[in-house]
Amino acid sequence: MFRKWHLFTPGPVPVAPQVLLAGAVPTPHHRLPEFSALLSEIRRDLQYLFQTRRPVFFFASSGTGAMEAAVANLFSPGEKVLVVRGGKFGERWGEIAEGYGLLPVYLDVEWGKAVQAEEVKSRLDRDPEIRAVLVQAHETSTGVKHPVEELAAICRDKNVLLVVDAISALGVYPLPMDEWGIDVMVAGSQKSLALPPGLSFIAVSERAWSRVEKATLPRYYFDLRREWKAYQKETTAYTPAVSLLLSLQAALRLVRETGLEKLFAHYALVSEATRRAVRAMGLEVFPEVPCEALTVIRLPEEVDGGKLTRLLRERYGVVVAGGQGKLRGRVVRITHMGHQSPLEVVLALSALGLGLSEMGFPVKMEEGLAQALAFIGERGKEVYA
Amino acid sequence: MFRKWHLFTPGPVPVAPQVLLAGAVPTPHHRLPEFSALLSEIRRDLQYLFQTRRPVFFFASSGTGAMEAAVANLFSPGEKVLVVRGGKFGERWGEIAEGYGLLPVYLDVEWGKAVQAEEVKSRLDRDPEIRAVLVQAHETSTGVKHPVEELAAICRDKNVLLVVDAISALGVYPLPMDEWGIDVMVAGSQKSLALPPGLSFIAVSERAWSRVEKATLPRYYFDLRREWKAYQKETTAYTPAVSLLLSLQAALRLVRETGLEKLFAHYALVSEATRRAVRAMGLEVFPEVPCEALTVIRLPEEVDGGKLTRLLRERYGVVVAGGQGKLRGRVVRITHMGHQSPLEVVLALSALGLGLSEMGFPVKMEEGLAQALAFIGERGKEVYA
Repeated sequence: MFRKWHLFTPGPVPVAPQVLLAGAVPTPHHRLPEFSALLSEIRRDLQYLFQTRRPVFFFASSGTGAMEAAVANLFSPGEKVLVVRGGKFGERWGEIAEGYGLLPVYLDVEWGKAVQAEEVKSRLDRDPEIRAVLVQAHETSTGVKHPVEELAAICRDKNVLLVVDAISALGVYPLPMDEWGIDVMVAGSQKSLALPPGLSFIAVSERAWSRVEKATLPRYYFDLRREWKAYQKETTAYTPAVSLLLSLQAALRLVRETGLEKLFAHYALVSEATRRAVRAMGLEVFPEVPCEALTVIRLPEEVDGGKLTRLLRERYGVVVAGGQGKLRGRVVRITHMGHQSPLEVVLALSALGLGLSEMGFPVKMEEGLAQALAFIGERGKEVYA
Repeated sequence: MFRKWHLFTPGPVPVAPQVLLAGAVPTPHHRLPEFSALLSEIRRDLQYLFQTRRPVFFFASSGTGAMEAAVANLFSPGEKVLVVRGGKFGERWGEIAEGYGLLPVYLDVEWGKAVQAEEVKSRLDRDPEIRAVLVQAHETSTGVKHPVEELAAICRDKNVLLVVDAISALGVYPLPMDEWGIDVMVAGSQKSLALPPGLSFIAVSERAWSRVEKATLPRYYFDLRREWKAYQKETTAYTPAVSLLLSLQAALRLVRETGLEKLFAHYALVSEATRRAVRAMGLEVFPEVPCEALTVIRLPEEVDGGKLTRLLRERYGVVVAGGQGKLRGRVVRITHMGHQSPLEVVLALSALGLGLSEMGFPVKMEEGLAQALAFIGERGKEVYA
């Protein structure tokens, strides 16, 4: 009866029941006029979420598909791109670029550190052949936030494209695409949109669109030119993931009703409360510049992270993510995204404290919880008014 | 996105998604052979839950319907029953008895106190015309547990029926009907069974069944004789609440898989953790003998309970129950029943602490949480192993 899961992983995230139920209806056909109306609504709401007047495209794919779409649509073989590589998803930009025969130039950043905008600038100064900068809004593997606004200004100056993986960032903190001049932004459904996995999103600035027309890399399913043609006819190039789009409609309505400002304030509040708790517990927030989507916590050296996450899951139903790549076993990652209420992070923190204690590494749990709760109690008066 | 409800009310309670989904199928017809198989399984599993070899009947009704069924099926006009009245549900026994023209004799107990078995015995000694004792396993309005096992022994001695409202008790702590000799036990779906409201249950001992045959009070929908005839033909007297029965099947499978012992251990653990937290916070557990189904907390005199519960709900999505009848505004009630995980009560306690603090009555929240978590951490090793 009490086997209940509390998902604190940075994707998938908890999905609201009304969003799930919106997709749990007999599948409508995707070429009927009613479906075009649905598409129009979704597309308008996606523009609100992306803070752009440009069209936003979606694919039935994981977020990685939209990353691939960005690369395949913008470039021609042998072109140089600067890849900010400070975690697993920076590495992924590089792997896609290499896979497509581009010449990625790597700007390696220590895991947990943010890229220095100046460093990007000097790389671009030194190598005028670089056509684009590929970066994450934040690195979900380390929790670090990169300075997207500054990077956008630099790229504009240099006439270089800025391609941002905002897969787990969109809707969590401000990334106003048009205002900042981000050229390409990609996102996924199982993050802040709080949908199940299976949809990815991409928007392309006017400046970058001219490259889409000229790019010679091969693409078919992810070809944005075909999607744009279909978009204009209020349809999609291929069969879309219909049930997920019905859920998307419900999720986007929630976003619109809630308002981006309020969402951002919620995530800022809960993530700061969590960081305060973590530090008061005597633990360390891993990234130098933490993002609001998740909190990455460095574990004491002697703790086996895999054993810890298993203990939390099996004993308390609390599912947190471990580390990826070189951080495997060294950190735990607790997301704030998705259908979570303000106090719910206390569950994750309580489980973490109990788990560490049981494994012989007691932390100052009550001090941590007190810090988090005091902060939520105080700031929540405005944010949840 | 973050408007999420956490239901801590003593009915309805959180329902597991697989239980909800089990009922969300096209309605099968209730007179087909496949449905008889479903009924057989449900009935067998209800016997396990009631710890009885007697048939367990169900009605499409709230728990109050099964209370009425108990009265209407057991008695004849003008008969005397002893009603233990120490809260809103004790009062309800009296109202039903009066409504049906019985002569209820009231044993009034101070709200929050358990009835003394000796007191019941002396009332029965003094008045041999009393045919039955009507009592709650616990009073959900005050959280107090009555001594059912002792009462059963006394009633057996006196050849008086013991009728127990176990609406929010069944499956929470031991009430072995056959072993203790409870004559009638009633239950509801939206309590420990963790279903939506709409079903009630009743089982009648062999000894009490002879009264059912002789009782002359009018009854039709709740007539157990008709239900027993239908039961023997593997059907029901009237159209049952089919979707709820499909969910019931799923819930009972969970009960069986989990096992009553484990369920009891879970509720004992979580309720004790909560009481420890409440006391460490500087608050008072209201009932003298607390039950495991819910924790009733006395509020400081100056606190407006209605305002407090509204604050918790609107700010944090945490829904706790206020007081009923003469306890209105004076207590909050937090249930442990339903689809709740071990640490989830921490959400309710955190919200309660923050709410009281905001209303000008700070409590020692971190000490409370520390007590609860330490207890869950320690005992949980066995209970959730």
